[in-house]
Amino acid sequence: MTAPLVLVTLDWVPEMPRGFVRDIRVRWLCEEIGRPYRVETVPLRQKTPAHFREQPFGQVPFIRDGGLTLFESGAILLHLAKGTPLLPEGDAGALALQWVIAGLNSVEPWVTNWMIARLFRNDPVLIEAAMPMLTLRLTQLQDALGEREWLLPQGFTVADLLMADILRIPDRGGQLAPFPRLAAYMTRALARPAFAKAYADQMEHWRQSA
Amino acid sequence: MTAPLVLVTLDWVPEMPRGFVRDIRVRWLCEEIGRPYRVETVPLRQKTPAHFREQPFGQVPFIRDGGLTLFESGAILLHLAKGTPLLPEGDAGALALQWVIAGLNSVEPWVTNWMIARLFRNDPVLIEAAMPMLTLRLTQLQDALGEREWLLPQGFTVADLLMADILRIPDRGGQLAPFPRLAAYMTRALARPAFAKAYADQMEHWRQSA
Repeated sequence: MTAPLVLVTLDWVPEMPRGFVRDIRVRWLCEEIGRPYRVETVPLRQKTPAHFREQPFGQVPFIRDGGLTLFESGAILLHLAKGTPLLPEGDAGALALQWVIAGLNSVEPWVTNWMIARLFRNDPVLIEAAMPMLTLRLTQLQDALGEREWLLPQGFTVADLLMADILRIPDRGGQLAPFPRLAAYMTRALARPAFAKAYADQMEHWRQSA
Repeated sequence: MTAPLVLVTLDWVPEMPRGFVRDIRVRWLCEEIGRPYRVETVPLRQKTPAHFREQPFGQVPFIRDGGLTLFESGAILLHLAKGTPLLPEGDAGALALQWVIAGLNSVEPWVTNWMIARLFRNDPVLIEAAMPMLTLRLTQLQDALGEREWLLPQGFTVADLLMADILRIPDRGGQLAPFPRLAAYMTRALARPAFAKAYADQMEHWRQSA
């Protein structure tokens, strides 16, 4: 018997981040591993003491898994993937962990930097300043992927799920066009039925929040 | 029989980062768990194709552990701590993982932001811009620590080792003074003999590199 899982996300967000709020990573993983969950919310505005008690930085997502409350999307993914094919045992598991942390720490910061310049500020000077590191990391990531389908030779893991979600932002912004093997990687990842279900469910959540 | 461990770091760095290069996290963990290792180096300047083959982003540290090459300091710490008291099993292990990732993703980016403003640029405008998020995260982290000695009630884990290493920079810059419980946490962490040994060994490495 697996404990009932609660995924906590925001009650509402504006149009732009819809489909990109990080609970989608957890939704996607749950679909991949067949883990049912229900959604609860915390307010985006007027953050509550109850929210900070469960998530000290006032962020989402966090989960309640039996008696455990857990935050940080990377930690949630690794925790839920444990014991499933998405997080193999042994050395392959260490490599999946490595790529999860590389996604969060060596790729996503430069994606975020570019996103803020491009989407939030739309400032040509900031965009130009953000481009070299984004381009460098995409080049290095494509080199590391090589001719493989997924980051690990064993197949699709939690690391691909996270990396693909991170790359959705530059992908939508057209930044993967010069990187055909990364673009193909994204096409493969986003074609997974589990992603489509997770995306539809998150969009439905925002629709119901009005 | 545990495989011989190789820790790869830089051949040389200038004075300022000495004692702070991230191989110190791995050295510290190895001392805590009694894992012997030997050090090899890659050039800081004129990075080599061999370096990029093992670390696609050209960073350090990375390790060779038997047949496995692994990068990202957070992943290395979690990999080496596995099966030791520094990374408990079960829910406590999930919480240690959560705090490792929170350190890397929700605390360190704001420390780095402040550090660049204060130490590299020494620009009052940038410093003032970096302060609110650093102060907010330190406040939230101190709240989350509460009256405990360590992040987990079970005691010192890999999460404290990483968080303390992250906080060394604002600590040395005097930024923890308004946070007495964080300052005491740092004093406890840095008083550990394993940290002192790791620090001395890293400094000796730079001395020998001249």
